[in-house]
Amino acid sequence: MIDRNDCEALDHSTDRTGDSLAGFSARFASGPPGTLYLDANSVGPMPLAAPEHVGRALDQGWRVARRRGWNETDWLDQPAALGASLSRVLGAGAGDVLVADSTTINQHKLLHHALGLNSPRNVVVVERDVFPSNRYAAQAAVALRSARLRDIANAGELGQALAAGDVAVVALSLVDYRSSARLDLVGLTRLIHAHGALALWDLSHAAGAVAVALERAGADFAVGCGYKYLCGGPGAPAWLYIHPRHAKSAVWPALAGWMGHADTFAFDPGYRPAEGVLRHQSGTPAVIANAAMSAAADIWRDVDPHILDARHRSLTDLLIRLVDEQCADLGVTVASPREHAKRGGHVTLRFGEVRGDGDAGALAQALVDAGVVVSSRKPDALRLAPHPLTARHVELWDAVARLRALLLSGQWRDPRYRRASV
Amino acid sequence: MIDRNDCEALDHSTDRTGDSLAGFSARFASGPPGTLYLDANSVGPMPLAAPEHVGRALDQGWRVARRRGWNETDWLDQPAALGASLSRVLGAGAGDVLVADSTTINQHKLLHHALGLNSPRNVVVVERDVFPSNRYAAQAAVALRSARLRDIANAGELGQALAAGDVAVVALSLVDYRSSARLDLVGLTRLIHAHGALALWDLSHAAGAVAVALERAGADFAVGCGYKYLCGGPGAPAWLYIHPRHAKSAVWPALAGWMGHADTFAFDPGYRPAEGVLRHQSGTPAVIANAAMSAAADIWRDVDPHILDARHRSLTDLLIRLVDEQCADLGVTVASPREHAKRGGHVTLRFGEVRGDGDAGALAQALVDAGVVVSSRKPDALRLAPHPLTARHVELWDAVARLRALLLSGQWRDPRYRRASV
Repeated sequence: MIDRNDCEALDHSTDRTGDSLAGFSARFASGPPGTLYLDANSVGPMPLAAPEHVGRALDQGWRVARRRGWNETDWLDQPAALGASLSRVLGAGAGDVLVADSTTINQHKLLHHALGLNSPRNVVVVERDVFPSNRYAAQAAVALRSARLRDIANAGELGQALAAGDVAVVALSLVDYRSSARLDLVGLTRLIHAHGALALWDLSHAAGAVAVALERAGADFAVGCGYKYLCGGPGAPAWLYIHPRHAKSAVWPALAGWMGHADTFAFDPGYRPAEGVLRHQSGTPAVIANAAMSAAADIWRDVDPHILDARHRSLTDLLIRLVDEQCADLGVTVASPREHAKRGGHVTLRFGEVRGDGDAGALAQALVDAGVVVSSRKPDALRLAPHPLTARHVELWDAVARLRALLLSGQWRDPRYRRASV
Repeated sequence: MIDRNDCEALDHSTDRTGDSLAGFSARFASGPPGTLYLDANSVGPMPLAAPEHVGRALDQGWRVARRRGWNETDWLDQPAALGASLSRVLGAGAGDVLVADSTTINQHKLLHHALGLNSPRNVVVVERDVFPSNRYAAQAAVALRSARLRDIANAGELGQALAAGDVAVVALSLVDYRSSARLDLVGLTRLIHAHGALALWDLSHAAGAVAVALERAGADFAVGCGYKYLCGGPGAPAWLYIHPRHAKSAVWPALAGWMGHADTFAFDPGYRPAEGVLRHQSGTPAVIANAAMSAAADIWRDVDPHILDARHRSLTDLLIRLVDEQCADLGVTVASPREHAKRGGHVTLRFGEVRGDGDAGALAQALVDAGVVVSSRKPDALRLAPHPLTARHVELWDAVARLRALLLSGQWRDPRYRRASV
């Protein structure tokens, strides 16, 4: 049995190793003492420098520079510069990542890009139970251009779905938003390519938590959320990736705009796409949101993805073991894969007692009230997501102890906790 | 001849009238003393409360609430709430405006919406010299769905372009981004409707400067920038409008996402659009950017559009008269319409001496260095845009005096000023 001292020892030992990430937690702001944040799958922690970066954009930018900001500051360079800063943790080339718009908007951009690139094939393959926004994007994209959608129940059906040779693009989430099950990025991309299709990956629940290597995997396209593990701030701009093999393509962006023109300030009446990802800039950059994200981007440039991955593994393997040891007798089971390489950022728990719609939400809310910030997904998934750059092993001990106490007390069944949870 | 005392008298007189907007300038932050901002067509002034609103989103939201922000704060309500706050100055119903994404992205959304609504008509009419991003959006939208683009040189050709009865939507900018010429919102919408087409208006260079009445004009759709006269902060989310007659339509948004589903948190695998503008929420709201904009939204709820319009008229009529009186002998001409109802937010000047590409940019840059923040557009447009809620008449006197001095000195011809201006 692991005890709290063992967890403290784990923290001290990782603090001491020369290649540790110990210094990084000091680059993030802390919440109130006693609150344990296991919600990096929803909103990652705030870099300490974020208020200063945003404050500068407001005061020196908006108040003083006003329109001079477009010429005299980095406002117009941010989307590419932020993308370059994130490229290391994504395993991508510095020029192949762009930060702009939302994950859903970027899904639309790249679904259409893939359909354009792989014409006349016109089938889009998606999982039936993928995160709904990804599904809605695929449904709307095929409706718009008279293409076709092909549902699969899971990635195991992919070979069959590809067999007819009519698939233009397969859009997959690398990590399931409920169970945290992680797909095989390399193997599935290879399978997709073997059938002449293109691979569009959503890395929202992986990027910034575990090591991913987009370019090495040969992924054609990828998108991901900016505000989860990447710590860009709530509702931060998302990112998108295009493999360099497609950089010179002549395919127009579906959402063409002035910022993605090959020569924006020529004010050419005819659209000509910029190279690679840059063409997927549509409107004016979100200057203030980008300033918030720039604080995280500064950190990501310094993070070795392999050390990040090892730290994430150390934390989440411990979390699983603590749940096994302290909560199995209360009917708690680990619903995420036990092998780290098959998991994404969070660990999902299920409970014998939690069956009806809203039960997981009530338990999550009760845990929040007990100072452990977690999230749930209907019907029964409780998600715990420590951020590898800030979480300490001992916090996981404390969180699991509070979970056990809550289950023992039965307090979470109080009707006041039965409200929706995001 | 007007002198500086007359301008001061105008300020005192507007300060004294009971229905004046005098109190409003105190709700905005000032720039450094001596700098005159005539760039509200590019980046409007910062509301005094903006840093506090943003600071709260960062500290109480991001740092402390983390994922609880989605449940326990206004994060998810912002797009509709901000839209409701802007609706008064747009002459729209409170539920018919949404704040989200960029102007260009919103152009795409509404072009496709109009094409869907007016099918099988499939022609999109745009002006050849409209702001390039609007053109690129139309070019890309028709390419995506095998629709057709029909160019017109100007609105005078609209009747002819509509005659064949095949036009689905006419996308017009209410105000020309170079000359500030304002089209006839009511008359052209009527003409478009008479031919069975739908009207999509871009109000970027009008909204927040002059009175517009979208619902009364019967406009089907509209979009506009959030960071110009509306003072949402650089790169702020844009707005979009749909007339209530289309609110119940079954047309899917081209950029469907979870936030625009009729029941987002049901996680329905099939998309069902929310009502009216709400379906055009795609991804997660831009929380921090929305917090910045909320400071302006609070102000716009209190502004009477007719008083705003009168103040804008008083300021820009004076600006034109001062240029006539003080700069006509130096070859300066007013390129904007002289009748206020035919102008948008800015006043455009041209110069006998300014002919080559880059000359207007050099003059604008020299003026900036002389403490008058203006903007230019190639080849020869110098744009001066006082914000009606903050500018004082006497500032216009000072700005024109500095322009005259600069032209007399010839300093603006210095090579260092020959660089691009946005």
